[in-house]
Amino acid sequence: MTDRNLRLTIAYDGTDFCGWQKQKNGISVQGVLEEKLSIITDNPVTLHGAGRTDAGVHALAMTAHFHTRSTIDSAALQNGLNSMLPQSIRIAGVSEVPLAFHARFSAKAKTYLYRIYTGPILPPTERLYTVHVPFNLDLEPMKSCLTLICGPHDFSSFEASGSRDRARTGGRGGVRTILTTGFKQLNTDMYQFEFTGDGFLRHMVRNLVGTILEVGMKRRSVDEFKRILAAKDRSKAGSTAPAHGLYLKEIFYHD
Amino acid sequence: MTDRNLRLTIAYDGTDFCGWQKQKNGISVQGVLEEKLSIITDNPVTLHGAGRTDAGVHALAMTAHFHTRSTIDSAALQNGLNSMLPQSIRIAGVSEVPLAFHARFSAKAKTYLYRIYTGPILPPTERLYTVHVPFNLDLEPMKSCLTLICGPHDFSSFEASGSRDRARTGGRGGVRTILTTGFKQLNTDMYQFEFTGDGFLRHMVRNLVGTILEVGMKRRSVDEFKRILAAKDRSKAGSTAPAHGLYLKEIFYHD
Repeated sequence: MTDRNLRLTIAYDGTDFCGWQKQKNGISVQGVLEEKLSIITDNPVTLHGAGRTDAGVHALAMTAHFHTRSTIDSAALQNGLNSMLPQSIRIAGVSEVPLAFHARFSAKAKTYLYRIYTGPILPPTERLYTVHVPFNLDLEPMKSCLTLICGPHDFSSFEASGSRDRARTGGRGGVRTILTTGFKQLNTDMYQFEFTGDGFLRHMVRNLVGTILEVGMKRRSVDEFKRILAAKDRSKAGSTAPAHGLYLKEIFYHD
Repeated sequence: MTDRNLRLTIAYDGTDFCGWQKQKNGISVQGVLEEKLSIITDNPVTLHGAGRTDAGVHALAMTAHFHTRSTIDSAALQNGLNSMLPQSIRIAGVSEVPLAFHARFSAKAKTYLYRIYTGPILPPTERLYTVHVPFNLDLEPMKSCLTLICGPHDFSSFEASGSRDRARTGGRGGVRTILTTGFKQLNTDMYQFEFTGDGFLRHMVRNLVGTILEVGMKRRSVDEFKRILAAKDRSKAGSTAPAHGLYLKEIFYHD
């Protein structure tokens, strides 16, 4: 029997998890999935995700892969997993991929969303999925910031402090390329940021959103935002926006 | 000091509550609000809601009133309450109303929404707010049912069994007038029913939705739906749709 490589597309509500990655204390999405996969395939499974998400961050379509000698077919695996998993984790797809496929190293780009609500009273049913920003935001300067960050930049100013070592892969330093950004109104008082890039430093989206919101509140100018980006110094940027407004939307591969 | 009558507009996430109404066992929205109101006004408060909602049912704008001798102004009351309440209950408005105003007896009409998701995998972040109906629904016959129920009808076929005594007020028997209905797509695979009526029997919206969904799944015809409505017999209708897809959207008064 030879190893097979199976790719999972996973949606989850991050509210009840300590994040994607297994940790000694706390229930992680990876930990729950590995446990159920090991039962279904009757062998210990190590699941490799495309990246980490912090506690409270949601995923519409995380990608992960694992090697197995089980002969279970993809549809049976998907149905079996979904029947064993809590409703807060759903398997949206299972497919067999070449052994060389690696959820993290094969990834070419990722898209994140970030949702905010600007009205005075945050609807209670949105409180775990949308961040309350009860301000009359100046949207045009915010959009200017979103244009400014497109292209390759050293985003060190927007990296989580203390994470310099971990986040630097492939000799890129703090340089990441933002491919597209977007900002749209979803509903009355509800807005959504969108960021697609070839990679993201730790807390980069949340630090970008936190700083861009300060521009929207007229606490910083677009010029100041430009200087923060150029400074490559975390201490210059604004606050880290809360985790629960962030969604990993999609991971892109060459196929 | 004379009594004042204060009207509250309240939004809540029904997930964690046993419903609107105070109960011996379980945490109710009314119970939580009365507790905080009694603290703020320094006197026991009895809060009168426009109606009940079941466990798991959400509200975008429930209306309630209470009498008090407190001189606290409306804005201070709203801010004070919101700072004391859990995020799952929000006070969207407070206003002083004539003593004769009664949240329930003065109400002229109510609007309810019901949300369903028809795709194969329910997004985890929607699981407490949208009911999973993973079927390729036939929408036109469903819309015919929504047209059929408009106007005054005896809705006894769609009343919760065993609730005959409680729900009959003002000599109307099971007759209620549906003023408007709607059905629209919110998003990919996400749909919303809307019902506005001068009153609703217990479980009426959920029983209507459950039966109309069976029409959409081709398990019943529109003619059969028509016969069910005419039968005035609960045993004829379809199943009760789950509580967590239901939202009390608005209560209408003469003002």
